[in-house]
Amino acid sequence: MSAPSHATHAGVSGPRLPDTQQGMRRRNLARVMHTVAAHGPLSRASVASRIGLTRAAVSTLVDELTRSGLLEELGPERPGSPERPGRVGRPGSALTVSGRGPVGIGTEVGVDHLAVCAVDLRGDVRARTSRRVGNRGRAPEPVLADLADLVHEVTQDAERQGLRPVGLAVAVPGLVARDSHTVVRAPNLDWHHTDIGELLAPELPLTVDNEANFGALAELWRGDGAPDDFLHVSAEIGIGAALVVDGSLLRGSRGFAGELGHVPVHPDGPACACGGRGCLERYAGEEAVLRAAGLPPGPDRVDLLTERAAAGDTQVLGALRDAGTALGIALTGAVNLLDPRTIVLGGALSRLAPWLLPCLEGELRQRTTGPGCAVAVSRIGSEGPLLGAAHAVVRAVLDDPAGAV
Amino acid sequence: MSAPSHATHAGVSGPRLPDTQQGMRRRNLARVMHTVAAHGPLSRASVASRIGLTRAAVSTLVDELTRSGLLEELGPERPGSPERPGRVGRPGSALTVSGRGPVGIGTEVGVDHLAVCAVDLRGDVRARTSRRVGNRGRAPEPVLADLADLVHEVTQDAERQGLRPVGLAVAVPGLVARDSHTVVRAPNLDWHHTDIGELLAPELPLTVDNEANFGALAELWRGDGAPDDFLHVSAEIGIGAALVVDGSLLRGSRGFAGELGHVPVHPDGPACACGGRGCLERYAGEEAVLRAAGLPPGPDRVDLLTERAAAGDTQVLGALRDAGTALGIALTGAVNLLDPRTIVLGGALSRLAPWLLPCLEGELRQRTTGPGCAVAVSRIGSEGPLLGAAHAVVRAVLDDPAGAV
Repeated sequence: MSAPSHATHAGVSGPRLPDTQQGMRRRNLARVMHTVAAHGPLSRASVASRIGLTRAAVSTLVDELTRSGLLEELGPERPGSPERPGRVGRPGSALTVSGRGPVGIGTEVGVDHLAVCAVDLRGDVRARTSRRVGNRGRAPEPVLADLADLVHEVTQDAERQGLRPVGLAVAVPGLVARDSHTVVRAPNLDWHHTDIGELLAPELPLTVDNEANFGALAELWRGDGAPDDFLHVSAEIGIGAALVVDGSLLRGSRGFAGELGHVPVHPDGPACACGGRGCLERYAGEEAVLRAAGLPPGPDRVDLLTERAAAGDTQVLGALRDAGTALGIALTGAVNLLDPRTIVLGGALSRLAPWLLPCLEGELRQRTTGPGCAVAVSRIGSEGPLLGAAHAVVRAVLDDPAGAV
Repeated sequence: MSAPSHATHAGVSGPRLPDTQQGMRRRNLARVMHTVAAHGPLSRASVASRIGLTRAAVSTLVDELTRSGLLEELGPERPGSPERPGRVGRPGSALTVSGRGPVGIGTEVGVDHLAVCAVDLRGDVRARTSRRVGNRGRAPEPVLADLADLVHEVTQDAERQGLRPVGLAVAVPGLVARDSHTVVRAPNLDWHHTDIGELLAPELPLTVDNEANFGALAELWRGDGAPDDFLHVSAEIGIGAALVVDGSLLRGSRGFAGELGHVPVHPDGPACACGGRGCLERYAGEEAVLRAAGLPPGPDRVDLLTERAAAGDTQVLGALRDAGTALGIALTGAVNLLDPRTIVLGGALSRLAPWLLPCLEGELRQRTTGPGCAVAVSRIGSEGPLLGAAHAVVRAVLDDPAGAV
């Protein structure tokens, strides 16, 4: 452990950029972008008062961002807007983040599908496409060749609209080594140590991450009223989770944090592919729930479970109750260890929530003391990984606009 | 969620101090202090090259820190020191953090004892005292009156040495609400919603935290070779844990993270005081281990367990094996959720490690895939909470030396 590393992590000395005039300018460019993105349209004066810099300093920063095509001038700010309560005099020109500049390309490799979208700095989806395809057990090369076709399609669509793709992010249902493009293990695809960067060889800067991580980031960045501290639980075929602390993802030392699906629920229970016994996935993963519900595996099983549960199918209802109980036991451990403000159910779990929640919340209530932990249901649901991936590219531009120019 | 909060948390815009010349100066003062504390004695030139500022800028910062009594000049830096490999010419004057300036007062409220110490900026313990006293079920007022007596004793001792106590930190075996002085619940003391600040009314700035948190921080700051990412597990009467990520403690939204003792191990197991069933403490807490070992409760039970285990007492060995197994199951969940680089066994667990580890590591190995997670044993052991508390005061000085002047 070295002092510089401590100094970097200490509260008062946190920035990663060097603490120089140049670093300060870049951080202040980021402050302006984030402020306009979250609260715009805003005048220069409003931006200055929000971030505590002088109007002259903000004007210099804004000019640079406007020249770079990251901010746009809309004309006079509306009088009487929340930014100008009771203000009189000539309104300033209103700024907004550009809807004609950079876009992030998000992609999702699912077990049953591929999807690609382009999201602009305002967070609007500007192009998207998807394809139903059974990827289970399929080699990475043809899957990524298909993905490259869809990326090309969306990129062209975006460029026809005058947009500029600035980065590509790939969401995968597996463990991704931290700060790498390598899928260490994706059991439901049967991929091992797959270097997405090498196989996809994109022209754009590439980010690869676990789908649960991108799902949590989508909730953080797009969710309505999501707090800065929450545990996001998502399931498609497997069960993953991601902890957001103070607005940042907890990745783990190797990037493997959030493997909620392999938390032991009944330590003497059935063997799991991970090497453990009685893992949560053995009780609440899609395969386990379908077996308990008496339904065969196949595509769109969540739709089928939802239909049957809504129709009052006793076996399906019992299977979902048991899954909710197992989720509640595993989440009790997670709440005791992590103390999140909220648990957010995302992915397929969001659609099954009406039938999972009673038992899940019952276990949490009985097993944890104090106010426990609120459980919310994501409105983004299964769209999370795809949107989170595209947004990750957009956030990188907002976080360091100087680097995106 | 607001943009300013995002901007604060984003990597490129992290500092909590305002991004102004004044904030930059304070951060750079902290960099100089941390660098000299970790690597001193160092010349001004060595400090400058380590932190990437000019020698002139560093000299100004050093002068300020020397005037404030936080740094000392030792005379010429040794030629041939690791800082001057092969360098020739007149060596600079060597700087070191002051051993005559501020000290942090650390205190520990244990179930069976009270302890207080003073630690200087170099990390040396300069004064200490402790008292055996049965605090279980004792009201907070007399306990804290006793603690105040010991603090007075240590403070006077430090002042006689020309040292200057600058803060007081109290480690308690219970849940402490984040950023407060309130012990929400300390089951083994039977304290509830106890405001330590109000009852202790110290003259020094006060910090109150859970003993497991201070134990983990002691490991981070004093441990030999501890990484920046680890899960610190400690037990005295109860079982606590603390996760250190990138050199910072994960506190949880309310400050209650790390309750490893209440992770369900066998969800249908015996009822626990926390409201749950089959919690880890019911299998590996001191009371449970003593019961399984056929020993009555009392003081110094860890000494007794260690003696009996070393002597080959079959019942004690069996009890420790079962406790190790339960720890391994609970830690499997924690490793899957958090992906720490290392697990460090601290507190009383460090002394019982020889008998706990085989089953604990066996469970981890069987139940987790990949390289799993290394388990290390703390050398600080039961001293962790006391030393961590004193160091927390010292670190606050290093982190913001301008605030300590």
